Amino acid sequence: MSDRQAVHDYIVRNRQRFQDELFEFLRIPSISAVAERKGDTRRAAEWIGERMRTAGLEVSIHDTAGHPIVLGEWRQAGPGAPTILIYGHYDVQPPEPLELWTTPAFEPTIRNGRIYARGSCDDKGQLYLHVKSLESHLAVNGKLPVNVVVIAEGEEEVGSEHLMPFVRAHRDRLACDAIVISDTGMVGAGLPTIGASLRGLAYMEIRVQGPAQDLHSGSYGGAVLNPATALARIIASFHDAQEHIAIAGFYDDVDPAPVFRANMERVPHDPAAFLEETGSPLAWGEVGYSTVERLWIRPTCEVNGLLSGYTGEGSKTVLPAKAMAKVSCRIVPDQDPAKIARLFEAHVRKVAPAGVTVEVLELHGGRPWRARLEGALVEAGARALKYAWGKDVVYAGEGGSIPIVPEFEEVLGAPAILLGFGLPGENAHAPDEWFSVENYELGTTAMAELLFELEHYQRS
Amino acid sequence: MSDRQAVHDYIVRNRQRFQDELFEFLRIPSISAVAERKGDTRRAAEWIGERMRTAGLEVSIHDTAGHPIVLGEWRQAGPGAPTILIYGHYDVQPPEPLELWTTPAFEPTIRNGRIYARGSCDDKGQLYLHVKSLESHLAVNGKLPVNVVVIAEGEEEVGSEHLMPFVRAHRDRLACDAIVISDTGMVGAGLPTIGASLRGLAYMEIRVQGPAQDLHSGSYGGAVLNPATALARIIASFHDAQEHIAIAGFYDDVDPAPVFRANMERVPHDPAAFLEETGSPLAWGEVGYSTVERLWIRPTCEVNGLLSGYTGEGSKTVLPAKAMAKVSCRIVPDQDPAKIARLFEAHVRKVAPAGVTVEVLELHGGRPWRARLEGALVEAGARALKYAWGKDVVYAGEGGSIPIVPEFEEVLGAPAILLGFGLPGENAHAPDEWFSVENYELGTTAMAELLFELEHYQRS
Repeated sequence: MSDRQAVHDYIVRNRQRFQDELFEFLRIPSISAVAERKGDTRRAAEWIGERMRTAGLEVSIHDTAGHPIVLGEWRQAGPGAPTILIYGHYDVQPPEPLELWTTPAFEPTIRNGRIYARGSCDDKGQLYLHVKSLESHLAVNGKLPVNVVVIAEGEEEVGSEHLMPFVRAHRDRLACDAIVISDTGMVGAGLPTIGASLRGLAYMEIRVQGPAQDLHSGSYGGAVLNPATALARIIASFHDAQEHIAIAGFYDDVDPAPVFRANMERVPHDPAAFLEETGSPLAWGEVGYSTVERLWIRPTCEVNGLLSGYTGEGSKTVLPAKAMAKVSCRIVPDQDPAKIARLFEAHVRKVAPAGVTVEVLELHGGRPWRARLEGALVEAGARALKYAWGKDVVYAGEGGSIPIVPEFEEVLGAPAILLGFGLPGENAHAPDEWFSVENYELGTTAMAELLFELEHYQRS
Repeated sequence: MSDRQAVHDYIVRNRQRFQDELFEFLRIPSISAVAERKGDTRRAAEWIGERMRTAGLEVSIHDTAGHPIVLGEWRQAGPGAPTILIYGHYDVQPPEPLELWTTPAFEPTIRNGRIYARGSCDDKGQLYLHVKSLESHLAVNGKLPVNVVVIAEGEEEVGSEHLMPFVRAHRDRLACDAIVISDTGMVGAGLPTIGASLRGLAYMEIRVQGPAQDLHSGSYGGAVLNPATALARIIASFHDAQEHIAIAGFYDDVDPAPVFRANMERVPHDPAAFLEETGSPLAWGEVGYSTVERLWIRPTCEVNGLLSGYTGEGSKTVLPAKAMAKVSCRIVPDQDPAKIARLFEAHVRKVAPAGVTVEVLELHGGRPWRARLEGALVEAGARALKYAWGKDVVYAGEGGSIPIVPEFEEVLGAPAILLGFGLPGENAHAPDEWFSVENYELGTTAMAELLFELEHYQRS
């Protein structure tokens, strides 16, 4: 039996134990957002550290001003061997609303081939399958084909505030040839997927001030400009009739992504399922692009919140002093969040009527990211996935943002690859989160295979 | 000394007592909106009833499902004498925010010729000066020149729910030749004013539904229509570039009010004071009309409230399921609130994009009103005011709505006259409400004089 076959047999043989251990991990309510769960969050860090140690890694736990960062290292692959950094997170989203869970969030349960639990998919299951793939190599062969550093953080669900400062401070120790991240999904069951892009984010708040205080809408209505009306006009100016964004210069840096667009024909998309999933009456968006393209390769300008005047029950005849909108742009390569925020503010100032004063605040920004879809890393990933699933990979964009991906690449100077095993409808941030039992095992197999594939990998 | 002179001397002689009594009235916190003040509100009803009785009226207090209605009657003016109905209210607005009052809301205090107290102007001071004018006639002459019914309600600040049912039920008892209401203001100090018009109201709520639940703005943004964006577009469609209302048929029934417009040149308007009063950066509104015209004779379409998505601190990347706006139109003669609500809804449905579903609720309506500016009643009012202030009256519109005015006229079949003594900046519904000491006395004089003027009045 080859080394490979032995490793993969080990995974199959230990199926039940791997699942039992994951259940233990899932029972720890490591909710990073909640102060009372600080102890549980640390417990999850220690638990995953201990498991990495048992697997054969050298483990260190690094305190931060928030939750700890866990490092697991194995550096005995010999001279010239590449170093692979694997990133994941052990913290989870809050489980609320609890009443919408079929079984309790922190009591993992299998139904219909799915592991239901908070964090099963995002990201404990996907982090732990890497640990199990490393264990399988070390248990069978006493070594890994490559050097490995696992970095597991506990603040992904609250903004990863201390991650990048840590990475920068330990740049040499974390030096690597590739960054592997399993925190995304596959485009469909049985369709192994490599992440091709992430949208970035530019998040702004518009504050419109009309009169100095709320006025009586009878005594003053018609003679001063209503800030809520002014805000509505500003928002209505963001798109043209084709739903193109009408902010000057907005598309200047957008990559039309023709190569990636060609792959899209292979992406399954069921329009009826999309409407059912969203509950929206119609698919809607930029003319000239499909739903999948609108989500993956086109930028957006979306209102996230609106507030003005009286919003309680019944009627109150107030002419509001203020109106506020939260607006965020999902941006695509090579748009820059700071530049988009500037263009946005310039647009708002240009269209804002003189009868009100307007302020634009830049709340948050994150860069978009694009995978290199050629080269040794992506080829290794594609072969590893094909080994496990027996099918060619699909390259999938992601509508959301993972700002740490481009940041990792920049600080460590190595390319990242997104190999995710979630599935559509996984409820990552909602009640009844689940992770496919099959994907847990095939993901472990694929990630074990990836290490073989990367044995002779050289960063290009 | 004539009867008139004697009555007016009596008012001057009793100045201090009239003020002391008003202070007693103002100390009763008759806040109709607040359940815990139900006892105080009744106490104010009993207090004003007792004062009417002392003045020489027959008093009855009528319970309603809300606060009581107080009637004071004097019907001995002899055969053929007209009957005058005087309306006022003894309830007041809540005083909050308390910290913005210079002296406590229910401890009347005089500063700079102003009586500061909640209800001083709206409407206890204006109601009580009628009671004092009646007392002055009866004390000096033992009779009134006309039959009088005073009706004082305790629910004006909460929508007058039980007033009109009471008036309808007592239509015969309340039969009259003219309705006198002092619950408005003068256009400026020393400028006696007769109310020429009131705007009505059509108050609607727009509910826009996009997706069935809030979505992640990254995962779905760009591929479904954002209901907040859709709502902004709907609101932006309400006006054209000249700030005319762009709802089809909206102006069909608007009276251009040319006679009234001519009088407007006599209305003082200080643009700088208006900006200071509102704190708005600019006067703004329908092209072709002055600020005063925009407030008095032109209809509006104003947003009163907006709500959608996430409105807390910081950034949350939500694509909202719902967006809501409260929108009200101030309407002018001869617009009808129900018709305007229908046109509004038709407009919203016409412009709403197909990617969302829209509901329009009609929350509240009130009719506009226009005074007859010729005839015996308005002439009597003008002479009475001129007697007190020594100046010709100004005919003033009112931007707000008093739906009971047209309702009184309709149910009782008699014309109303608005003789109000508030002044600009009186803070009727705000902290530091005040009523001019001078207007309290001159108002008493004018209203005593009005009864003489109406002695031979016949409804035309």
